[in-house]
Amino acid sequence: MSLSDDSRYLRGGPVAQRIIAAVREDATIAKAEGFPPKLISITVGDTDAVDVYVRNQRAKAQLAGIDFEERRFPATITSGELEAAIHGLNADPRVTGIIIQRPVPAHIPIKMLQAAVHPLKDVEGMHPASIGNIVYNQLDLAPCTAAASVELLKETGLDLKGLEVVIVGHSEIVGKPIAFLLMSEGATVTVCHHMTRSVAAHARRADALFVAVGKPRLIKADMVKPGAAVIDIGINSEVGPDGTSRIVGDVDTDSVKEVASWITPVPGGVGPLTVAILLRNTMVALSRQRALYEATYGTSDRLAAE
Amino acid sequence: MSLSDDSRYLRGGPVAQRIIAAVREDATIAKAEGFPPKLISITVGDTDAVDVYVRNQRAKAQLAGIDFEERRFPATITSGELEAAIHGLNADPRVTGIIIQRPVPAHIPIKMLQAAVHPLKDVEGMHPASIGNIVYNQLDLAPCTAAASVELLKETGLDLKGLEVVIVGHSEIVGKPIAFLLMSEGATVTVCHHMTRSVAAHARRADALFVAVGKPRLIKADMVKPGAAVIDIGINSEVGPDGTSRIVGDVDTDSVKEVASWITPVPGGVGPLTVAILLRNTMVALSRQRALYEATYGTSDRLAAE
Repeated sequence: MSLSDDSRYLRGGPVAQRIIAAVREDATIAKAEGFPPKLISITVGDTDAVDVYVRNQRAKAQLAGIDFEERRFPATITSGELEAAIHGLNADPRVTGIIIQRPVPAHIPIKMLQAAVHPLKDVEGMHPASIGNIVYNQLDLAPCTAAASVELLKETGLDLKGLEVVIVGHSEIVGKPIAFLLMSEGATVTVCHHMTRSVAAHARRADALFVAVGKPRLIKADMVKPGAAVIDIGINSEVGPDGTSRIVGDVDTDSVKEVASWITPVPGGVGPLTVAILLRNTMVALSRQRALYEATYGTSDRLAAE
Repeated sequence: MSLSDDSRYLRGGPVAQRIIAAVREDATIAKAEGFPPKLISITVGDTDAVDVYVRNQRAKAQLAGIDFEERRFPATITSGELEAAIHGLNADPRVTGIIIQRPVPAHIPIKMLQAAVHPLKDVEGMHPASIGNIVYNQLDLAPCTAAASVELLKETGLDLKGLEVVIVGHSEIVGKPIAFLLMSEGATVTVCHHMTRSVAAHARRADALFVAVGKPRLIKADMVKPGAAVIDIGINSEVGPDGTSRIVGDVDTDSVKEVASWITPVPGGVGPLTVAILLRNTMVALSRQRALYEATYGTSDRLAAE
């Protein structure tokens, strides 16, 4: 890889480090003031598939000075019992945020669980009210992957006001939230998906192109406007010519990087940033909770509320 | 006006009548089953400006068989007292839905009032959780003007899947909700606004064009694709050449109707439909409340819940 190639890459790692350092500062102050931030991770059933993610969240939380506690529930639990457990955590003033690790067993409706988390403790930004708040221009707590993607676009230094943005993929927790976040920042946003007549026609006019559809190498060089910023949110497993499996994005990085001015590598782009955003969300949740204590009890002292 | 002109107009009146007739049927059944739907209208301070709207809502509610009760609060009320009154209505099982008439006095934060209405009684579709639910593809209860606009597009019979839609105006309760509603229906949606570099360039490629910016006659014939459907949501007061004041939309109807295949008149387009949607939302809210009673008390008999 030549040096000039390298400068086109929007890497998540350095941005994540910067965010985690800022969170650590805030967390240290909050702890000294009697409000240690604390995350609860909920896993249900067989946890092998998610263990690597949870370990990574725990390690980053520790780095940021945020307590991280795991609650593991058996696959046989009912959704009613899980909801009750979440309501208990909602009511516990020591708990700042609740993470529901996916997947959960098929008999548990995941949306119901996400909606059971109190909006004030919804650090994943998945509750309908959290999504609605973004629409109402309250942008500081958004779904982690969406917020991470927008954060990387901001790294380019491009002026978001009037920027022509095209998003390929209209999922509820990635494509759509990216759209509202950028609408609120003043961008002109188009959302494409599998029913769009010509994704290429839209993609080619984008100053910033976001792709989150889970189709390896969908976006080729001829679909990208010269000089564009390309944010690749896809994570696909592909068997390479040498027979080994590797991770590739939704963008054909090798060809597109010759056309784009900025491109996120996969892996190493949006991925490393999502946990940093989760931790930043935790501090946003904590400060909202503290504001509520103060409004309700007329004091910033949490002990008065317990 | 020639006959051929006339057939291009998408009029709200007949659609509203159809919806109100359907609501009346549902309301009659609900009443017979012990759940009479009931709306509470809240006005604060000087009500002259809103009286004509409230009278219209009352008349249409009566037509639909929905009880309509007005609560008028003095301009001197505090926002805390208003919130308490709303919480009382939230808890009252006889109340199906709560409407907060705008404007409210400057010292009352309107967003806080809207968020105080329980999402289950949010017939205006303004609560952040209601907005979030639309993003999550639960489309049956949306902000009234946005839903009315989409309803008129559906009247054209156009297939929404893959339809190129451009929305001019990115307000939280009109432009953005129209965007999510149509994304969920499979359209390819672009949202433009005052920071967009060229609204005309986007508008010209739209199969369906929605305009909600409050600028009289902003959209001219040369900004519209031949054969498009144009939904005009603007309501502007304009002094005509004869010195009298009249209502015009954001679209230059006279010139655009020569290009478009469908166009909503102003007045007479989206306007008459919004109250019908409010009444339909009331029935959606009622059926969600009944489902909650049943899930909570194991009975569909409301008396058990009182």
